[in-house]
Amino acid sequence: MQYMITFPEALAIMQEEIRNIQYPEQPQRLYQPIAYLLHLKGKKIRPALTLLACNLYKENVEESLNAALAWEIFHNFTLMHDDVMDNADVRRGEPTVHKKWNENTAILSGDTMLVLAYKYIIQSPADKLRILLDLFSTTTTEIFEGQEYDMQFEDRLDVSEEEYLEMIRLKTAVMIGASLKTGAIIGEANRKDQDLLYDFGINLGIAFQIQDDILDVYGDPLIFGKKIGGDILCNKKTYLLVTALNTANKDKLAALYQCLHSSSRDKDKIEAVTSIYNDLSIKEKADAKKEEYYQKAIHALEKVSVSQERKSILKNLAEELMDRKS
Amino acid sequence: MQYMITFPEALAIMQEEIRNIQYPEQPQRLYQPIAYLLHLKGKKIRPALTLLACNLYKENVEESLNAALAWEIFHNFTLMHDDVMDNADVRRGEPTVHKKWNENTAILSGDTMLVLAYKYIIQSPADKLRILLDLFSTTTTEIFEGQEYDMQFEDRLDVSEEEYLEMIRLKTAVMIGASLKTGAIIGEANRKDQDLLYDFGINLGIAFQIQDDILDVYGDPLIFGKKIGGDILCNKKTYLLVTALNTANKDKLAALYQCLHSSSRDKDKIEAVTSIYNDLSIKEKADAKKEEYYQKAIHALEKVSVSQERKSILKNLAEELMDRKS
Repeated sequence: MQYMITFPEALAIMQEEIRNIQYPEQPQRLYQPIAYLLHLKGKKIRPALTLLACNLYKENVEESLNAALAWEIFHNFTLMHDDVMDNADVRRGEPTVHKKWNENTAILSGDTMLVLAYKYIIQSPADKLRILLDLFSTTTTEIFEGQEYDMQFEDRLDVSEEEYLEMIRLKTAVMIGASLKTGAIIGEANRKDQDLLYDFGINLGIAFQIQDDILDVYGDPLIFGKKIGGDILCNKKTYLLVTALNTANKDKLAALYQCLHSSSRDKDKIEAVTSIYNDLSIKEKADAKKEEYYQKAIHALEKVSVSQERKSILKNLAEELMDRKS
Repeated sequence: MQYMITFPEALAIMQEEIRNIQYPEQPQRLYQPIAYLLHLKGKKIRPALTLLACNLYKENVEESLNAALAWEIFHNFTLMHDDVMDNADVRRGEPTVHKKWNENTAILSGDTMLVLAYKYIIQSPADKLRILLDLFSTTTTEIFEGQEYDMQFEDRLDVSEEEYLEMIRLKTAVMIGASLKTGAIIGEANRKDQDLLYDFGINLGIAFQIQDDILDVYGDPLIFGKKIGGDILCNKKTYLLVTALNTANKDKLAALYQCLHSSSRDKDKIEAVTSIYNDLSIKEKADAKKEEYYQKAIHALEKVSVSQERKSILKNLAEELMDRKS
């Protein structure tokens, strides 16, 4: 029986790889923020998915390490630039790069990071270079489109469920799908399996983001790690708010609008919005939608042409992500 | 005799290629700024250099078009982000992207542009893909380092000539060198010629930037196109200012410091600084340094192993860039 890498092992491998990245010494102000952000705690889910997908087909996942690193570096690059655009102060419990240094540093170190991601992916096997780079470039562009829609939604109260789901598909899910597909390509999976793993990732990613939206309101404050209600306070268009805006009757809608425009204390605003969500059974609706995408993900995974035993690692991982409390 | 593309022809080809770029329709706010910046008037020197270098070795330059476009798109991406970092209002006589839209748009459209550049370069011939991508990624990283040093120099009065020259090598010259080398690689030049053309570009790029610095102060206001003295007004560390700071005696230095910290009218400040430059023969020193790098460039070009006739196109182009008035 071929050796199977577990999810914790994949995470550990990637954490080690990231620790071992060598940065040029100068100019310090360009490279220090990159190391800072990459070394903040935080799971390394995306590169671990690349490794695990590769390992479905190949015992030796060595050839997928550079591409896996590329995804993790790209992911952190998006955090660096998104935090500037969203004017966020805190990332993983620490100051964001543009707060610790300044905006120009976050812009320029971010640009350097994006090219650094390419520097890793171009070290992948030569015969797969163009297909990997096509996937990487197409996916990263979609992620920028998702961020653009997310910003546009800030000024809109009429975002439909369909638009919201398309936005999180672009902003969050395609990176999960592409991280998996990258591993499958390097593992020399057949084309159908590559696409099924991509679909698994897309649906898992959407379910993952809806879970994120739920946790912001209904998470356990002792476990969640962030302040409950952060999305509510900045009127973020989450699956919960979009669904509430689209399903509320006239009276509830008026109450919701009042909350969105109120200048009441944080605690009061969070309580008021949560109470409207409760009245509209928003948590149940979000749980149902999350479950719908989770099932689609599992369905795609089931069709992948490797043994149940090998697939169980990704299946258990999906389950774990869905049940997570933080 | 093999057909030789002239510099104006190369510019025209690239202008046409850039006009023909197809952008996705949505999201508009992501793609419009890219089209806006690429379609502002402005020579397309860098991609033309890629074509001309390729044409030294191959009649058919078709295979170099995508990589040439990549360099032009990357160049414009740096303008979009640098204008945010420098808080510049005007680019080629029109509002900068972050002024016409906003900063977030300039950041995100810029990121999209950087990936767009890669999307073009990865369409280059498969057998040269890795070497082209290595050159592209190494060079773009150096350009970020150059921008970082340029920003750091804003707060410093003790920049040495050596540091200044290294900064413009990174920020400006490596892109000229790499645009040429890209064409040489696709043209299947031997390794020595590739390096000589790179050296030609590096030295030409440094001479080009010194010429830029000179024109800001000593250009003909009727021809220059920009306001004379722009660099003086923002205390920009140009070759002229760095040389003045490094060669002035105690009295002149005190006068120069006074200018740098003065709040006098624009016209008076420009006159005062120019007068100090004149007293210190700064223009002559800058002209001599420019000539030194220009000669190095020509010297490298002479060693390239193609006929004098073919090389004359690049030689004349170099001469033209040195004599330019705007």
